[in-house]
Amino acid sequence: MKIRPLKFIGFGTALGKQCVENDFFEHFHSLEKGKIEEILGLRRRYHVQNETMIDLAAEALAKALTNANLNFENLDLVISASVSPFYTLPNNATMIAQHLGKSQVPCMDVNQSCLSWLAALEMASSLLQVGQYRNIAIVSAETPSKILNTNNLETHCLFGDAAAAVIVSQSENPNQGVVKSLFRTYPEGWNLSLIPAGGLAKHPLHDAPKAEDFTFQMQNHRILLYSLKKMKVFFSEFFTEDCTWNEVDKFVPHQGSRAGLDFFCHEFGIENKVIRNFEQRGNCVAASIPLAFCEAMQHGEIKENQKILLTGTAAGISLGAVMVQL
Amino acid sequence: MKIRPLKFIGFGTALGKQCVENDFFEHFHSLEKGKIEEILGLRRRYHVQNETMIDLAAEALAKALTNANLNFENLDLVISASVSPFYTLPNNATMIAQHLGKSQVPCMDVNQSCLSWLAALEMASSLLQVGQYRNIAIVSAETPSKILNTNNLETHCLFGDAAAAVIVSQSENPNQGVVKSLFRTYPEGWNLSLIPAGGLAKHPLHDAPKAEDFTFQMQNHRILLYSLKKMKVFFSEFFTEDCTWNEVDKFVPHQGSRAGLDFFCHEFGIENKVIRNFEQRGNCVAASIPLAFCEAMQHGEIKENQKILLTGTAAGISLGAVMVQL
Repeated sequence: MKIRPLKFIGFGTALGKQCVENDFFEHFHSLEKGKIEEILGLRRRYHVQNETMIDLAAEALAKALTNANLNFENLDLVISASVSPFYTLPNNATMIAQHLGKSQVPCMDVNQSCLSWLAALEMASSLLQVGQYRNIAIVSAETPSKILNTNNLETHCLFGDAAAAVIVSQSENPNQGVVKSLFRTYPEGWNLSLIPAGGLAKHPLHDAPKAEDFTFQMQNHRILLYSLKKMKVFFSEFFTEDCTWNEVDKFVPHQGSRAGLDFFCHEFGIENKVIRNFEQRGNCVAASIPLAFCEAMQHGEIKENQKILLTGTAAGISLGAVMVQL
Repeated sequence: MKIRPLKFIGFGTALGKQCVENDFFEHFHSLEKGKIEEILGLRRRYHVQNETMIDLAAEALAKALTNANLNFENLDLVISASVSPFYTLPNNATMIAQHLGKSQVPCMDVNQSCLSWLAALEMASSLLQVGQYRNIAIVSAETPSKILNTNNLETHCLFGDAAAAVIVSQSENPNQGVVKSLFRTYPEGWNLSLIPAGGLAKHPLHDAPKAEDFTFQMQNHRILLYSLKKMKVFFSEFFTEDCTWNEVDKFVPHQGSRAGLDFFCHEFGIENKVIRNFEQRGNCVAASIPLAFCEAMQHGEIKENQKILLTGTAAGISLGAVMVQL
């Protein structure tokens, strides 16, 4: 295995301004106190008030730049890695750049559902090998609170709004960077996690979509069963004799649900190595993995020189894993 | 300059089923016969009937796979490179894969407005250097006929529906591949070409967007002036002593408008080297550059061993150029 050298030189995060406790949803769904934590395993999540996903993204990116001691103009590329577009045109990365002032840094969007940030990291780690890219920002921002399905208890309560940004740079240390990566998409699971409208499939100019079509349509139990089945095969392909579970210092999984996180921990016997922020953040869609990663860096749960597995499942159904040596 | 080795091994295209002549729009806008060709310089464009953007994409990709003598399962990555999402979730590449049968090929979307395919080529050319990616499909599909602004003559008549797909592969010839690339985004021009709704900015669940918000809002004259100003600076950066205009065999620009194409030809004195399909296809958004490229390959206007400059401007405003040695 040949390492793709890179280093993480900046981390930034942002949360929706409003902390929403379970009480709100328990009242809405006429549930007794404590029921949502019992069912779903989360205590609170943060929702935006008047901020937009672009506001959150720009805040996280500005913090990451400060953390890296860089100006926006020092970037060679901004990749926005989110599920939802803000405008249909232009792309999200342009709107984030526009928020941060006049510039000429190229702005591209990458979308692989909840794995968007990981897919962007895969691309950035390759682009850094091309001489002209030295510093690349990868920003994920999501405001799922704008498109909640209030008819479905689980989907309604699950999601949090957040953004997370990292700056990745060329590294002269050949032992530091992306050690290994693997992505798979199983399109037979395309309709297990779906937002039918917003794009051209059910369009307001032609198809009279219902309000519900703009919200998450998730078959939570089936997603879980399907993902878990695929996950075993996926990791048996990822981990080989020369790259084992044991050498991983910390796992940063997508914070999709308690059930998914619990399975991941128990099935592979790695509970004490798994970063979890789901209880306090909820499922932050594509911002979930980078938020957990950035917060763990900031809190010292992840340290320099450690080997980290960033991984998750996403609508598609897609599975992805990127192992980095910090 | 270090070439990023790659070869194009498959090309495929698809057009909307319905050929729409200028008569239709002349009747709609009460214009005399011949007026639209006089003003806009195009004769016809193709619009979908019942096909979707995913149908077009899958058709183009299937043809590219046949052309490359590959099966879908031989791909290591599918990149969808389009402006419009089909569903908000999952991504377009997954839906294209779903159309072509059961598989596990990773599916990712890249969006840089009308330069999406070029941005995806930039990423693919880097990913091919990573051992695990050998064959990557890049597919662009657009159905702008679904979101036309009928109140604006120019915007209404300009757009065509199409898809184009290429398969790029590792090359053992170190002189074949991406010679040079450059991308710039100037976000001060973000509102010159805008589709305000479809994403979270003006959302049916919150903001009661008007029908027109879902359509192209283009300040055509200002886009042209702004792009042309930036283009001169951009190309003076791109072309240097060791990489000149003269060595380019063919230019494949974004087929955005006659005025833009004419300026590009005349300003740089390259009229006899420029591939144009705008007159017969209209502006096919992100499918424009790959469609012109694929058709020129199929018609023998571009030949093996030639040096090609793929370039364009996009909403953002973004400029991009990738020079490839075939």
